Amino acid sequence: MESISMMGSPKNLNETFLPNGVNGIKDASKITIGIFGSGDFAKSLTIRLIKCGYHVVVGSRNPKFAAEFFPHVVDVTHHEDAVAKTNIIFVAIHREHYASLWDLKHLLIGKILVDVSNNMRVNQYPESNAEYLASLFPDSLIVKGFNVVSAWALQLGPKDASRQVFICGNNVKARHQVLELARQLNFIPIDLGALSSAREIENLPLRLFTLWKGPVVVAVSLATFFFIYSFIRDIIHPYVRNQQSDFYKIPIEIVNKTLPVVAITLLSLVYLSGLLAAAYQLYYGTKYRRLPPWLESWLQCRKQLGLLSFFFATVHVAYSLCLPMRRSERYLFLNMAYHQVHANVENSWNEEEVWRIEMYISFGIMSLGLLSLLAVTSIPSVNSALNWREFSFIQSTLGYVALLISTFHVLIYGWKRAFEEEYYRFYTPPNFVLALVLPFIVIVGKIILLFPCISRKLRRIRRGWEKSQVMEERGGTVPHLSPERITVM
Amino acid sequence: MESISMMGSPKNLNETFLPNGVNGIKDASKITIGIFGSGDFAKSLTIRLIKCGYHVVVGSRNPKFAAEFFPHVVDVTHHEDAVAKTNIIFVAIHREHYASLWDLKHLLIGKILVDVSNNMRVNQYPESNAEYLASLFPDSLIVKGFNVVSAWALQLGPKDASRQVFICGNNVKARHQVLELARQLNFIPIDLGALSSAREIENLPLRLFTLWKGPVVVAVSLATFFFIYSFIRDIIHPYVRNQQSDFYKIPIEIVNKTLPVVAITLLSLVYLSGLLAAAYQLYYGTKYRRLPPWLESWLQCRKQLGLLSFFFATVHVAYSLCLPMRRSERYLFLNMAYHQVHANVENSWNEEEVWRIEMYISFGIMSLGLLSLLAVTSIPSVNSALNWREFSFIQSTLGYVALLISTFHVLIYGWKRAFEEEYYRFYTPPNFVLALVLPFIVIVGKIILLFPCISRKLRRIRRGWEKSQVMEERGGTVPHLSPERITVM
Amino acid sequence: MESISMMGSPKNLNETFLPNGVNGIKDASKITIGIFGSGDFAKSLTIRLIKCGYHVVVGSRNPKFAAEFFPHVVDVTHHEDAVAKTNIIFVAIHREHYASLWDLKHLLIGKILVDVSNNMRVNQYPESNAEYLASLFPDSLIVKGFNVVSAWALQLGPKDASRQVFICGNNVKARHQVLELARQLNFIPIDLGALSSAREIENLPLRLFTLWKGPVVVAVSLATFFFIYSFIRDIIHPYVRNQQSDFYKIPIEIVNKTLPVVAITLLSLVYLSGLLAAAYQLYYGTKYRRLPPWLESWLQCRKQLGLLSFFFATVHVAYSLCLPMRRSERYLFLNMAYHQVHANVENSWNEEEVWRIEMYISFGIMSLGLLSLLAVTSIPSVNSALNWREFSFIQSTLGYVALLISTFHVLIYGWKRAFEEEYYRFYTPPNFVLALVLPFIVIVGKIILLFPCISRKLRRIRRGWEKSQVMEERGGTVPHLSPERITVM
Repeated sequence: MESISMMGSPKNLNETFLPNGVNGIKDASKITIGIFGSGDFAKSLTIRLIKCGYHVVVGSRNPKFAAEFFPHVVDVTHHEDAVAKTNIIFVAIHREHYASLWDLKHLLIGKILVDVSNNMRVNQYPESNAEYLASLFPDSLIVKGFNVVSAWALQLGPKDASRQVFICGNNVKARHQVLELARQLNFIPIDLGALSSAREIENLPLRLFTLWKGPVVVAVSLATFFFIYSFIRDIIHPYVRNQQSDFYKIPIEIVNKTLPVVAITLLSLVYLSGLLAAAYQLYYGTKYRRLPPWLESWLQCRKQLGLLSFFFATVHVAYSLCLPMRRSERYLFLNMAYHQVHANVENSWNEEEVWRIEMYISFGIMSLGLLSLLAVTSIPSVNSALNWREFSFIQSTLGYVALLISTFHVLIYGWKRAFEEEYYRFYTPPNFVLALVLPFIVIVGKIILLFPCISRKLRRIRRGWEKSQVMEERGGTVPHLSPERITVM
Repeated sequence: MESISMMGSPKNLNETFLPNGVNGIKDASKITIGIFGSGDFAKSLTIRLIKCGYHVVVGSRNPKFAAEFFPHVVDVTHHEDAVAKTNIIFVAIHREHYASLWDLKHLLIGKILVDVSNNMRVNQYPESNAEYLASLFPDSLIVKGFNVVSAWALQLGPKDASRQVFICGNNVKARHQVLELARQLNFIPIDLGALSSAREIENLPLRLFTLWKGPVVVAVSLATFFFIYSFIRDIIHPYVRNQQSDFYKIPIEIVNKTLPVVAITLLSLVYLSGLLAAAYQLYYGTKYRRLPPWLESWLQCRKQLGLLSFFFATVHVAYSLCLPMRRSERYLFLNMAYHQVHANVENSWNEEEVWRIEMYISFGIMSLGLLSLLAVTSIPSVNSALNWREFSFIQSTLGYVALLISTFHVLIYGWKRAFEEEYYRFYTPPNFVLALVLPFIVIVGKIILLFPCISRKLRRIRRGWEKSQVMEERGGTVPHLSPERITVM
Repeated sequence: MESISMMGSPKNLNETFLPNGVNGIKDASKITIGIFGSGDFAKSLTIRLIKCGYHVVVGSRNPKFAAEFFPHVVDVTHHEDAVAKTNIIFVAIHREHYASLWDLKHLLIGKILVDVSNNMRVNQYPESNAEYLASLFPDSLIVKGFNVVSAWALQLGPKDASRQVFICGNNVKARHQVLELARQLNFIPIDLGALSSAREIENLPLRLFTLWKGPVVVAVSLATFFFIYSFIRDIIHPYVRNQQSDFYKIPIEIVNKTLPVVAITLLSLVYLSGLLAAAYQLYYGTKYRRLPPWLESWLQCRKQLGLLSFFFATVHVAYSLCLPMRRSERYLFLNMAYHQVHANVENSWNEEEVWRIEMYISFGIMSLGLLSLLAVTSIPSVNSALNWREFSFIQSTLGYVALLISTFHVLIYGWKRAFEEEYYRFYTPPNFVLALVLPFIVIVGKIILLFPCISRKLRRIRRGWEKSQVMEERGGTVPHLSPERITVM
C-alpha cells in the first residue's frame, strides 16, 4: 500500500517486520522485536518470541541488572538503544510508568507500541491504558493486545480456547502487523478494529460473570424466601398444631417445593422485561426513546435469567425423580399397605388423584423439554449457527409456550386445593398460588399485546415508520430484519 | 498492491478510506461513507458510523425532506453530490429501485457499492440482488454484506452471536475495505469470497430450520401414527372387550409407548440412508454417479434425524423415570399388597421377570449413554474440535453400536411376548415388533456390507480407483481422508 | 506491498492470481491454478476450482493417459508446460515422489507450491512433508494447507465444521494468496502462521482422541477392578456363605456400585495432579523448573478426566433413578408388606434410615449440579466465552466444592457401616471406604496448601518473583493474569 510512505521509516519497517521475500532469505529469524520491561510477562514473551525464531531486544533502565533474568541470546540494553534496533515494541510496564518513557518520545515516532497491560479493576481509569499511551505518544502507532494471555500460556504454548488474542488499534497497517505477529506466535488474533475497543479489551480479563450477578442475586433471594416460607408452612405449622415432627422433609421435600417456584418466577421475569419495554414503547409511541436504565440492564440479562430458570427446573426434576427412592417413601407405602389390609379395602383407586398426577407429570416433562431446547440454543456455537428468525422462534415463541405449559403444570398440581381452607396454614396461601402470580401477569400482558390493534401499532413503532416517514419515498426502506429482538429471551 | 491503479480513483480511494498514516493525523474521523436510502436501516447505520467516528453523506432524491430523519451532523444531499464525496456507498434501497440509480452510472465507476438488501423469500429472484446490482453497474465494485444485521443491532451495538457479518465480492481490494469497515464498527466479518456467494448470504436470514423440516415432519407423522396405534390397542381394545376403562393411561403410558418406537425408527433412518447410498454405488460401480435427489436430501439431514432420535429417546427416559412417581402406580401396588396378603403368598418373586427388567433397563441406559455422546459431538464447537477420524468413529462406529444396543433393549422388552397370541389385539402386532423392523433391516444391511468381498469392492469404489487408474502412476494418489463420510450420521 | 518486487515474477503473479481490477474485467475466471498429480484429491480439487471459475492446468508425467480422468475443460499437460502457465501449484503427490520434481527446480523459483499431503501415522517422518518440500525447493514459496479436506468435501461443497482449512507458510504474501483462494472456494481458512506449524497441521487428521487415551484406560481399569471387587463381595460371598443366589443384581446393582467409585476417584485424580505440581514447585522453590513428563501429561488430560468423571456420575444417577422401576424392587416391596402385615407392625418408620437417605440423595443432587456446571463450561464455545478468572472460578473453586460434596455424599451413604464387622466380607473393606481414599488425600492436601504461610510462598513462586527480582524496578511487572492455571481442572 502506498500509504506506507506516510509512516516514520516505512521501508525499514516493512523490510524488517514482514517475513516476505523468497523462503529462507527473509523469514521470522531476521526480525527484531523490542520489549520494554523485565517482569514475568516480558520474560515469557521473550522466550516465546525466541522459540518462534525472532530476535528480541529488551529495553531497561538498568540493563546489566535486568540481563540476568533473560536468556543469554537476548539483547538487554538501554531503552534508547533498543528503540533504534526495532520498529515494534511491546510495552510491558505498568501504566503508572508510561510517563517515564516520555524522553524517548522523538525516538518512538512511527514505531508500533503494543500495550499489553491489564488493570486491577474494571474501568479503573477514565480512559483505557492504551488510549492513555496514545495520548502520551501521538506520533507512535499504538496497538492494544495480548493482555488476555497469561505469562504461563506464553511460555508453555497456548492451548485451545486460550489461543484467542484480542487486538485493536487505529492504524490499520500497524494493527495488521501485530495480528500477523500473533499468528506467527500461534495465537488466534481477533481484530476488534479501532483503539476505542481498548477499554473493552482491558476489561475482558477482569470480568467475573458480570451479567450473572443480578440474576443470581434474584434467584438466591427468591430461593431463600420460598424455602423459609415452605419451612414455616410445612414443618413449623404441623409441629405447632399437632406436635407432628416432619423435620425429615427439610433436605428434599421443602427444597423441592422451593425450586419449581423459583424456576417459574425466573422464567416469567425473562418475558416480563420484554412486555415492559413494549409497554414503554407504546406509551411514548416511539422506539427511539431510550429505555430506563434498570429496564435495559434487565433486558440484557434475560439469557442468564432463562438459564437459571432452566437450572432450577432441572434440579427440581432431579429431586422429584428421587422421591420414590427414599426410605421415607418406602415406610409410608408399607404402612399404607398395612392399613389397607387392616381396613379391608380391596381397591384404593382414586380416579381423580390418578388423573391429577398423570397430567401434572405430563405437563412437567413437556415444559422441561421445551426449556432444554431454549438452553441448548444458548450454547454460543449453536446460537451462532441459527439466524435471527430461528433464534427468535425458539427463544420467543417456544419460550412463551414453555411458560404456558409450566403454568398448567402448576395449576394441575394445585387442582382444587387453592380453594380449600386447610391449605391456608397460618393464613398464608400455598406455594403454588404464589408461583402463579407472575406467570399470570405475563400471559395476560402478552395476550393484550397480541390484540390486532395493539400489535399493529407496536409493529409500526418498531419498524420506525413514524407518520411522516410513511409518506416518504418507499424506495428508502429495505425489508430488513424486524427489530422485535426486544421480546426475545 | 499495484493493482489499485486499475481502479477508478485509486489514490483518492485509498487515502480517503483507510485510517492509515500516523495516529491522530488520519483516522476514522476523516473518512466519509455514503448511504443511498433513508429507511430504518439507513438511519441506524448512519448513527453507528457517526458513533465510530466516520463522516456520513446520505444521497436522496428529496434531500430537504429526508434530512429531518437523520442526525444534524449528517450531510443529506442529492445522489450526485453524495457520490462525489465518497468512494464507498451503502445501497440501502429496494432491489426494485436499483434501476433508478442508472443515471449515476458514470459517477459510480470504480466506487465500492455495498449491497445490504434482503429478500422476502428464499431464491426470490433468478440471481441474487448483489449480482443484479453488479450487472447494472459493471464498472463499480460490488460487495455484499451487512444484510444479516438488524437495524436494532446496528443502533444498540452488536452482542455476541449477532456480531457476525458475512461479506463477499469479486474485487479483493474492495472486499477487504468493507471487511475492515465492518471490523471498525465492531462486527466480526466473515469473508465468503467471490460475489457468487451473495445468493447464500441473502438466503441466510430467510432460512427457518431448512434442514429440520423433513425430519420433523417424519418424526411427527411417526409419533401420530404410533400414538393412535397404541391408543387403539391399549385403550380401545380392553374397553371394547371387557368394558375396562384405562383412559388414565393416555397422558403417560400411551405416550411412553410411542416415544421409543419413534426414537429407534429415526435412528435406523439415519443409517439406512448411508446403506442405500452404498448399495447405489455398488450397483453402478462408481462413486462419481450422482445419487438420486431424494437420497441426497435424506443424507443431508442425517444429523437432524439423529438429534430428533436422541430427543425422543431422552423424553422416553423422562417418562419412564416418572412412572414410579404416579399415584396410579401407588394404588396398583397397594392393591397388589392387599391381594398378596389375602392370597397368603409369602414370596411373589418371579426370577424371569426380574431378569427381563434388569437387562431391559441396563441396555436402555447404555444406548442412551452412547446416543448422548453422539448428541454432544453434534454441538458445532465440539464437532469442529474433532478431526474427521474422531467424528467418524463417534458418529459411525458408536452410532451403530447404539443402534445395536437399543435393538437389544427392545428385544428384551418384548421377550417371549412376540409369540403369544394375547398380544396380537385386533390382529395387530405389538408396538415393539413394529419398532424392530427398520433396525433389523439396517443391521442386516450393515453386516452384508462388512463381508470382506463387498467391503473391499466398496472401499475401492470410494477411493475412486477404477480399473484404469490402478495402472496409472501411483505417485498421483495422495493418501487422503477416506471419503466414507457417506456412512456417517 | 513493495515487497512483491522481491519475488520471482511479481507482476505476473499478482495480475494472474488476484481477481482485482474492475468487476467483470478481471475475476476468478481468468486465473489459472496448477495441479501436480492425478489422484482422487487432484480430481476433486479440479472440479471444485472449475466450479468456482478458475482455469486449471494439470501437470503429469503422462498427460495423454491422465487426461481421461479429468473434465474436458482441464488442460492436462507436461509438468514443465503446466508450471509455465501458472504461479500457484497444488502438489497433490506422495511425499516419496517429491524428489521426482527435482528437475523442475529452476522453473519453480518464486512459484507458490501448496503441499496438501497427509501421512499414515503421527510424526511419521523426522520433519513435516511441507518442510521437506521447502528444503528441496528453497526458492519456491511453500504453503501447507487443504490436507484436512476430504476429496468428498471438495466435490460436494463443504458443510459446516468441515469448512475449516488450516494454512501455514513462511512467506506472508504467498500464504495470504492461498488463504484468499481457500475463501474463494468457500472454505474458512485458519491462518496458523509460519511453516513450522506444518507438522501440527499434518498430524491433525491423524489424531484419534490423543488426550483421551490415558484417562479412558484409567477409567476402564478402575471400573473393571471395582466391578470384580463388588461382584466377589456382593454376589460370591452370600452364595458361598448362605447359598443365596443374588445373580440378578449383576446388571444393575453391581454396576451401580462400581460407577460412583470410579466417578469420585477420577474427580480426585483431576485435582491430585495440581496438588503434586504445587508440591513440586514448593519443593524446588521455583516454577521455572520443568515438571516431570508423567506429571505434565497428567496435568494436560485433567479436562478429559473431569469429563469422564461427570459421565460416570451421570450414568450412576441414571442407574439409581431406575432402581424403583425394577420388578425386583416391586417383589421385595410386596414381600415386605406381607411380612409387615403378618408381623402386625403398624409403623415400620426408622428415623435414622430416613435421614440417612434424604441427606444422601440431597448431597448427590448437589454434587451432580456442580459437576454439570463444570461439564457445560468444557464445551469449547462456552469455554472461550469465559475469561480466565471465570474459568478458574468454575473449574477450580466449584470443582473443589463438588469434590467436597461428593465426599459427603459417600460418607453419608456409608454412615456407621464402615465400623460394622458384617460389611467386611472376605476381610475386604466396603466399596465406599475405598472410594474415600483419594478424595481424602486431595482434600487434606488442599487444606495444607491453604495454610497462609504455604499459600503465600506458593503465590510468590508462581508470580516468578524470586528474591533478586523483588528488588528490581517494580515498573517492570505488569499486573498480569496469575498463572495459577496449574490448579485448574
